[in-house]
Amino acid sequence: MTAEAMGVLHGVGVGPGDPELLTLRAWRLISGAEVLAYPAPLGADGAVKSSLARRIVADSAPEDAEEIVIPLPMCAGDPRPAAAAYDRGATEIAAALRAGRDVITLCEGDPLFYGSFAHLLERLAPHFEVEVTPGVPAFAAAAAAHAQPLALRNGGFAVIPATLDDAGIEARLAAADGAVIMKLGRHLPRIRALLDRLGRLEHAFYAEKIGWAEERLTPLRDAPERAPYFALLHIRPAPPKDHAP
Amino acid sequence: MTAEAMGVLHGVGVGPGDPELLTLRAWRLISGAEVLAYPAPLGADGAVKSSLARRIVADSAPEDAEEIVIPLPMCAGDPRPAAAAYDRGATEIAAALRAGRDVITLCEGDPLFYGSFAHLLERLAPHFEVEVTPGVPAFAAAAAAHAQPLALRNGGFAVIPATLDDAGIEARLAAADGAVIMKLGRHLPRIRALLDRLGRLEHAFYAEKIGWAEERLTPLRDAPERAPYFALLHIRPAPPKDHAP
Repeated sequence: MTAEAMGVLHGVGVGPGDPELLTLRAWRLISGAEVLAYPAPLGADGAVKSSLARRIVADSAPEDAEEIVIPLPMCAGDPRPAAAAYDRGATEIAAALRAGRDVITLCEGDPLFYGSFAHLLERLAPHFEVEVTPGVPAFAAAAAAHAQPLALRNGGFAVIPATLDDAGIEARLAAADGAVIMKLGRHLPRIRALLDRLGRLEHAFYAEKIGWAEERLTPLRDAPERAPYFALLHIRPAPPKDHAP
Repeated sequence: MTAEAMGVLHGVGVGPGDPELLTLRAWRLISGAEVLAYPAPLGADGAVKSSLARRIVADSAPEDAEEIVIPLPMCAGDPRPAAAAYDRGATEIAAALRAGRDVITLCEGDPLFYGSFAHLLERLAPHFEVEVTPGVPAFAAAAAAHAQPLALRNGGFAVIPATLDDAGIEARLAAADGAVIMKLGRHLPRIRALLDRLGRLEHAFYAEKIGWAEERLTPLRDAPERAPYFALLHIRPAPPKDHAP
């Protein structure tokens, strides 16, 4: 089979939740899709849970598209079960591409900013044509929801995993003007105490499921004690001082 | 006049260049706009240059919308002329809002990720209702254009201004897995030498005007000697190692 006859692997960002944050290009690709692919969490009970990315496109995906679901086991610490799941998903996607069908992979937020698509890309990019449609990242939707800046002028900006220890987070915060701390989960109480000690508590906001019905956005001071894994903190840069008082 | 009768100040991200990277929400707000506002560079000759954000919405902005142009003097080092321009722009926008008209402020990329909107927000947010529509940042479009990851798994991500000195850039790169270096301009040769010394040259890509006709994307090794101010470098994280060899 010639390369011309093979399908294109698309990684399409669907944004963080609100279906109106799809780009026009994502909407065009998804509404015209023959084959959709996306990972979905595999519960400990063996049941495949609903995919957030698939829910975001509930109104734009065609009813008759083929859907390649990649059931992703959630095994903290052991990467092998997820790697095997990506291997199987990539094999299924490759079969569709070889049959000359484009595959639209749905990616929450932006396809190249964390998330699953990098794993498929690594397996498939050496063999197939790839096109990526960037999307709105979750941190931008969180900042928009309370209209506070992410980054200003010549300041730096950092995305910091909450899984780092206090010293690692402190060093990264010191080097950034604005910041986002991701993958909060059980680390929230520790990080709240750290930000309080660093004098940045008043600039920190807690954001959870922005754009969904269960959206929660509050100053960190008023945040819950327990956070889900995908919650984030937005730490705004110091206010600009460029105008007459 | 009651608060109900006042207009809403919108900050609307229009993405980095390709009009198809507008979100559905941005398209709805812009195509229905009564009043558009945006900054445009003021040349040394006193002529107002074309606004990139306005060019991105050439096909979506209504022909009969009122347009509030904020001519921005480019005076490196002295923030006062720009501050005075924002003061005048904010006064004009405030008059439209008080007359009960919504104002759609056009913002390249995302409204809260660098850029002008923070200056208007600071002046107007205390007095008017504000709504922000997040957008696709330029760095996401650059990564998409060559399908290379920005951030992976538990790695950090940093946006680093090229204006920092070598030690500052080196410290921020060491703390991040993936990174973007912004506002390159005349700093490019120095930063190329730094990345070579740090062994990260092979992971670095030069991106200029992604999504525009003049788009330029190349491994840093093959980049031009001179870069415009808005060019950026994308430094990809180390490849994932999670699958069987």
